Amino acid sequence: MKGVQLFVVPGLPAFQPGDDVAARIVEQLAEMGEGLLPGDIVVVAQKIVSKAEGRLVRLLDVEPDEQAQQLAELVGKDPRVLQVILEESNEVLRARRGLLVVEQRSGWICANAGVDRSNVQPDEESEYLALLPADADASAAALRARLAELTGVAPAVVVNDSHGRAWRIGTVGVAIGCAGLPPLWNQRGLHDLFGYELISSEECIADELAAAASLLMGQSDEGRPVVVIRGYHPPALPAAPAKTIQRPANIDTFR
Amino acid sequence: MKGVQLFVVPGLPAFQPGDDVAARIVEQLAEMGEGLLPGDIVVVAQKIVSKAEGRLVRLLDVEPDEQAQQLAELVGKDPRVLQVILEESNEVLRARRGLLVVEQRSGWICANAGVDRSNVQPDEESEYLALLPADADASAAALRARLAELTGVAPAVVVNDSHGRAWRIGTVGVAIGCAGLPPLWNQRGLHDLFGYELISSEECIADELAAAASLLMGQSDEGRPVVVIRGYHPPALPAAPAKTIQRPANIDTFR
Repeated sequence: MKGVQLFVVPGLPAFQPGDDVAARIVEQLAEMGEGLLPGDIVVVAQKIVSKAEGRLVRLLDVEPDEQAQQLAELVGKDPRVLQVILEESNEVLRARRGLLVVEQRSGWICANAGVDRSNVQPDEESEYLALLPADADASAAALRARLAELTGVAPAVVVNDSHGRAWRIGTVGVAIGCAGLPPLWNQRGLHDLFGYELISSEECIADELAAAASLLMGQSDEGRPVVVIRGYHPPALPAAPAKTIQRPANIDTFR
Repeated sequence: MKGVQLFVVPGLPAFQPGDDVAARIVEQLAEMGEGLLPGDIVVVAQKIVSKAEGRLVRLLDVEPDEQAQQLAELVGKDPRVLQVILEESNEVLRARRGLLVVEQRSGWICANAGVDRSNVQPDEESEYLALLPADADASAAALRARLAELTGVAPAVVVNDSHGRAWRIGTVGVAIGCAGLPPLWNQRGLHDLFGYELISSEECIADELAAAASLLMGQSDEGRPVVVIRGYHPPALPAAPAKTIQRPANIDTFR
């Protein structure tokens, strides 16, 4: 087939702590008459990785401290949720009513440290908050290894999440973990006449793959959390973790 | 075919001012045995739109003023290029050695106002800078209308460009113009327990489409400047221009 193809792995279950995500992906691919091909890229929504890894906090067990209570009042959120967000954050970048942007513990700048409360339960007893994976690059590498073990094919794996941006409205899919792929395509040797490297010469492939997959996941990534990208040829560069996408704070003028 | 397919329209010529981009796309699609299908999305690199619209400035004709000369020294660029960038900008957001981020005249926050000098000519006589389209939403609408006229199918059209971001290294494809498509998918009714709208509930589809297409365009968008996206079903919302993606300055805390 010419070009690049993206398809959803349908029929995946709701994931629980300890579940084998790779095995469920392989089963559902078989169900649709598919298998992994060399060069395939598997994009997995952060939420199911977090759930399978047990990155859940029961809301009822959270005791907000004073800082969480104050910030909760400012932002307009449940103080217990704020407590969990603060525990997941290195630094608060912006806080105002309806907006809380932090550097999350793994270094991602995002709203609410990626702490997700979108699946509110009817009884509070069973309401959990989902945190980001502790190390989404490690999660991606583990998924890649397990998929290779099960199928004989080691696909590149991207763990994606939906992040808001400066300057532009709306979220887009971005990579918070990857394995088997160069996340950045640095076209070395492209300089302007004065010898300065062109800022625009480095493309973030991992984020573009994450964004492409998000289109098929839609907003309810519970239902379509895994997308296979087939036929894309990454540049011949060494694989690296998604953490290499993080701009160091000391050279970022927009924090 | 299941899922979403992306393919390059191959063999397009180098564009000159006045060229009919839509006609060339239709010809090259026919050449590859393809035509536009209802629901197709045509993503076109900003650079060829700008060239076809004659958005070019001859470097030799530019007289840098004092502000341009000072900023050129700080940033480390040709003062004439700085002059053109400043004329294309509403506001300089950040300037330091190797980095110049502005609000471009159409409202996009980007490096160097999108002014492109990547095709340096051997003789300076014929060296031109390419500016962004004066109104890329209008460019997208005109391309859509012309494609409909030629084929009977009115595809959605996205004009994309590669932009750097805050916090993350590398550029990604973003939409600076679109037509026939809702750029933002606002899942209304998704509120947290306190009634505040979830920031993460609005997805920027246009930027995700632009990013997906960038994967196939690569970094030399001269060679593969048009990508067709087939099989993606946008949400049933009214079409709107890409300008609606711009976050108003007064509610953006990251400028």
